[in-house]
Amino acid sequence: MSHDALKKKIRDIPDYPQEGIIFRDITTLLRDKGAFREVLSILVDRYRDRAIDAVAAVEARGFIFGGALAGSLNVGFIPIRKPGKLPSETIAETYALEYGTDSVEMHRDALKANQKILLVDDVIATGGTLAAASRLIRKAEGEVFGIAAVVELLYLNGRQQLSDYDVFSIVRYDGE
Amino acid sequence: MSHDALKKKIRDIPDYPQEGIIFRDITTLLRDKGAFREVLSILVDRYRDRAIDAVAAVEARGFIFGGALAGSLNVGFIPIRKPGKLPSETIAETYALEYGTDSVEMHRDALKANQKILLVDDVIATGGTLAAASRLIRKAEGEVFGIAAVVELLYLNGRQQLSDYDVFSIVRYDGE
Repeated sequence: MSHDALKKKIRDIPDYPQEGIIFRDITTLLRDKGAFREVLSILVDRYRDRAIDAVAAVEARGFIFGGALAGSLNVGFIPIRKPGKLPSETIAETYALEYGTDSVEMHRDALKANQKILLVDDVIATGGTLAAASRLIRKAEGEVFGIAAVVELLYLNGRQQLSDYDVFSIVRYDGE
Repeated sequence: MSHDALKKKIRDIPDYPQEGIIFRDITTLLRDKGAFREVLSILVDRYRDRAIDAVAAVEARGFIFGGALAGSLNVGFIPIRKPGKLPSETIAETYALEYGTDSVEMHRDALKANQKILLVDDVIATGGTLAAASRLIRKAEGEVFGIAAVVELLYLNGRQQLSDYDVFSIVRYDGE
């Protein structure tokens, strides 16, 4: 399936969540077994045989692709969550929003020192959440082997915040 | 890996989220690649070759196992979410909590009539969320082929609310 064929499986939702924003809805890609398989197969081909120890992903949509990739690569899975959602002792990182800040948390014992972690999400937008998630992995003494996403919104320049990492995306949008 | 060996990979957290409750923390199972693989392999063995069209799962932890199983079964994935999280037109079902009610939502066009849907979650507790999710699938004219979870808290009698369905779980707890 070509880049353009995969892009056609993603639904554009104008003015969501607010006027002037086009939301890229990946639920139409997920429900299409051929498109979902293609995305997973691209990720598996890229990251198999790279001695990755675990996939980490940010809730909630990141859990879908992250869980699928961890299962296919036959490695562990580490959830990174919104504040207050994890039951054991956590570490946290804060990131800036347009107005205010938000945080992500990970269990303090989620990984072992020097483990190679692949960070997966559905979309790279401004990169703020993924940068914070990467700092969490480093704080726990893990290595961020790379960052992989299904969609990248190039016009939001997320890679600026992720310049320390090897970043990969499958479907790219140049502009709104 | 035996039932008891798998159960040992799940961490008990006493008095979470409130005093007197033992929370079954599956993050310790997920980070263990052998245990995660075993769980996935049990589910794949049970549901492969059953002509399932898609896996549906409820956010957020359900997305991890649901995404992994959809990927391994090579079928589509349908997210069922908390209110206000899905960007296109949705249908909703409400369920009772100890105090008050909550709802789950699914895109109105998430599935086609008569598709066979496997509903996946991390834990079967009271069964309220899974019963509501099953009603959503039926409302969209899908068939609930079965309900599968990694953990079942037998003392909460979740199967009472799920008696219309074929229910399967892997690790069972008889009591607190």
